[in-house]
Amino acid sequence: MNSQKQVRSLHQRKYRSLSNQFIIEGSRSIASAIDAKAQIESIFYTLDFSKKNPSMIEMVNSIPSKIVSSKEIDKLSPSITPSGILAVCKIPKYQSFNKSKNIIFLDRVSDPGNFGTILRTAIWFGIDQIGYSSGSIDPYNPKVVRSAMGAHFNISWLGELSLDQIKEYKILGADHRGKSIESINHDNEKWALVMGSEPHGFSKSTHSYLEELVAIPKIGKGESLNIGVSMGILLYKLTT
Amino acid sequence: MNSQKQVRSLHQRKYRSLSNQFIIEGSRSIASAIDAKAQIESIFYTLDFSKKNPSMIEMVNSIPSKIVSSKEIDKLSPSITPSGILAVCKIPKYQSFNKSKNIIFLDRVSDPGNFGTILRTAIWFGIDQIGYSSGSIDPYNPKVVRSAMGAHFNISWLGELSLDQIKEYKILGADHRGKSIESINHDNEKWALVMGSEPHGFSKSTHSYLEELVAIPKIGKGESLNIGVSMGILLYKLTT
Repeated sequence: MNSQKQVRSLHQRKYRSLSNQFIIEGSRSIASAIDAKAQIESIFYTLDFSKKNPSMIEMVNSIPSKIVSSKEIDKLSPSITPSGILAVCKIPKYQSFNKSKNIIFLDRVSDPGNFGTILRTAIWFGIDQIGYSSGSIDPYNPKVVRSAMGAHFNISWLGELSLDQIKEYKILGADHRGKSIESINHDNEKWALVMGSEPHGFSKSTHSYLEELVAIPKIGKGESLNIGVSMGILLYKLTT
Repeated sequence: MNSQKQVRSLHQRKYRSLSNQFIIEGSRSIASAIDAKAQIESIFYTLDFSKKNPSMIEMVNSIPSKIVSSKEIDKLSPSITPSGILAVCKIPKYQSFNKSKNIIFLDRVSDPGNFGTILRTAIWFGIDQIGYSSGSIDPYNPKVVRSAMGAHFNISWLGELSLDQIKEYKILGADHRGKSIESINHDNEKWALVMGSEPHGFSKSTHSYLEELVAIPKIGKGESLNIGVSMGILLYKLTT
């Protein structure tokens, strides 16, 4: 069982890394963690939460738990609007990187909501290896975890990567100046889909590895799509 | 030129509604507003911003402007991380609702980032009429505006709506229990695509209007996709 001081320390990347733990919040994410047999170390919830969610409390009853006041949960939670329940989990032990599977590569994606949405979307389309460049946000940042909705527990590999390490892949870059995704077919080769950050696009070093730029047709107006939306459309087209 | 007190009042829905004005922030959104010939009433920026972005300052030089300190911009901005420039705009005067065009309908979407991403995505795919149910977030909320990236100025109609008013449309609901989007074709009829809120789904009254449920194939794992991502994929399929 973690102390409350330990939980609060996990708001910072340094301590997440040192203790190899991170915080997940809310019923949906915690339920996903349990389903995926994640290693949950401690659970904290309010009395009010337990009254409104008896089935959730039933589900976590074998895990070391503590009922805390709503003032205490406010302090434990990294969120501005705590949900009444949070859990401390071990950072998953991933399988080793599998070069026979496709991969998503995130180039300096620093927005936590986008990073989390990307994990959630990748998992939906069966892409469970995610690499990211240096300069990306920590994937265990609480806001990433919240948007990912449990995706962390369904990933087979997640880590910092250089595109140099995956040169045998067909390296595709999402870019509105590219070839329309309509005309692209990569069913018969391993691909890495590279997403640049908003609004900067690809870093120079990343750009040099891109073999093909793929674009989503624009029917109306606008400068660009949100990175999570773009990746969703590209993955839909690449995987279905 | 708005007073600083007036600008701060626009953080609240009530005053946005009373004055028919809202705040936009950041170079990209302000550039979109200028491109779309939006009615910009005042601009506030810091000296530091003007030094780093001379072309932006050039672009806004015909609009009443004031240089403010970074402390002042912190107070004027509804954002936790102000970008150094903000503008007060008139809420656009939309055209009247056009029943010969397709429409997006948002059922109690309360997350501002999602609402904004939806506007941005709809515009990209040429859907420029957006209706929303009562109980949805104010579309001029600063966080909606930030995620929408200027989409507000490229919409032809945006307003509260009841599905009863558009019964002549084919009313499609996004739902993972529906028919796969692969097998659906609505090229020859007017459709309204209805998006429910996360995690609640459709309200009962909305549900009764849905004629067909459309789903995005799940190749991997997860309970659902983010609402903006789902809508992006569905619109890609419906419009391209």
